[in-house]
Amino acid sequence: MVGNIDKAAAELKRGNFVIIYDGDKREGEADLVFHASFADAKKIERMRKDASGLICLALGPDESGKLGLKFQTELLRNGGLEKIACEKTAYGDEPSFSISVNHKGVFTGISDDDRSLTIRVVDKVLNSDKPYDNFTHNFYAPGHIFLLISRGIENRRGHTELATELARRADLSGAVVICEMLGSGLALDKEDARDYAKKNWIPFVEGKEFFEV
Amino acid sequence: MVGNIDKAAAELKRGNFVIIYDGDKREGEADLVFHASFADAKKIERMRKDASGLICLALGPDESGKLGLKFQTELLRNGGLEKIACEKTAYGDEPSFSISVNHKGVFTGISDDDRSLTIRVVDKVLNSDKPYDNFTHNFYAPGHIFLLISRGIENRRGHTELATELARRADLSGAVVICEMLGSGLALDKEDARDYAKKNWIPFVEGKEFFEV
Repeated sequence: MVGNIDKAAAELKRGNFVIIYDGDKREGEADLVFHASFADAKKIERMRKDASGLICLALGPDESGKLGLKFQTELLRNGGLEKIACEKTAYGDEPSFSISVNHKGVFTGISDDDRSLTIRVVDKVLNSDKPYDNFTHNFYAPGHIFLLISRGIENRRGHTELATELARRADLSGAVVICEMLGSGLALDKEDARDYAKKNWIPFVEGKEFFEV
Repeated sequence: MVGNIDKAAAELKRGNFVIIYDGDKREGEADLVFHASFADAKKIERMRKDASGLICLALGPDESGKLGLKFQTELLRNGGLEKIACEKTAYGDEPSFSISVNHKGVFTGISDDDRSLTIRVVDKVLNSDKPYDNFTHNFYAPGHIFLLISRGIENRRGHTELATELARRADLSGAVVICEMLGSGLALDKEDARDYAKKNWIPFVEGKEFFEV
């Protein structure tokens, strides 16, 4: 029998959207996600309209290492802003935020065209011979794509870790675009997120399913 | 005769939205803005739905000084990531980005409720006796509200500078929520932004009007 996660991994590999819900005891939040290599303006437009949270690029530990990334908290602590650096969020984890970037070919960086270009080329650079050199040469920070660093699902069960783990299972690079699905005032209700998934033929997976044998 | 800028300043002071277009020769982008002290969930919801860019909090030079903020580029340069730190964007300026923050009372930080809380309390802290202590005590970074630092309109004519200058002329603290208005693929067309303004009774001002005597 093919499990839910396998079906979602297959859709991710086809360039389609997947919805990942972390868990009732964590953020209780559904994120709309797709793999970075398939980024185009239409997908970004749909994300900002249908999900409307923050559009981020989640990177696996290997991928973030290749680009020489650091956590934002480390930059704050070493930059004299240690007093404000986050120890722990309300849902119990440290934040995943690294730096934000724009490809040097963008204009403002925020348009659908610009954000999709930045995302697509980060993935391309990850698969190149010299990822670090190509990254530092072709991008600047701060920008409009927020890079997130996965700590691995054995250490943290957030959308960053779940999305990059799904990419790993799909045999894709650990570079996944993720965006929180918002409702009026709060996160989009779980059942509403599930309805959206059904109506749009998008696989809906939960964090706990990643740990089922 | 009451000028366009004066009318917009008055609307800002009433807690209403204003649209600021920077200029045809700069980003060519219209931002939906309102003053931080009036932040509530409904306004954030409208911003993410109608404008759908990045929701940021622009701060005047005095305000950012009170909070002990630094530019993100400075953190990158001092944090070993100088190779990727931005020198200049495609539209000619350095970025305004400082750090991102959440109020410690938020849950995930991204919901309309959470973002409006963060914004409202930053403004409250700015008007308190000990802004720096209250800021570092009640907020953590990184978060979901992106703080921008104005360099003053004599030095830069971006939305950050124009919005905080408008607040100054309205005799408000330099703390203005701003969000890029996006169209399909690109920034929302200037005439479409103007139409939206008209339909919704929102003042529309251009950067150049700030320099008219």
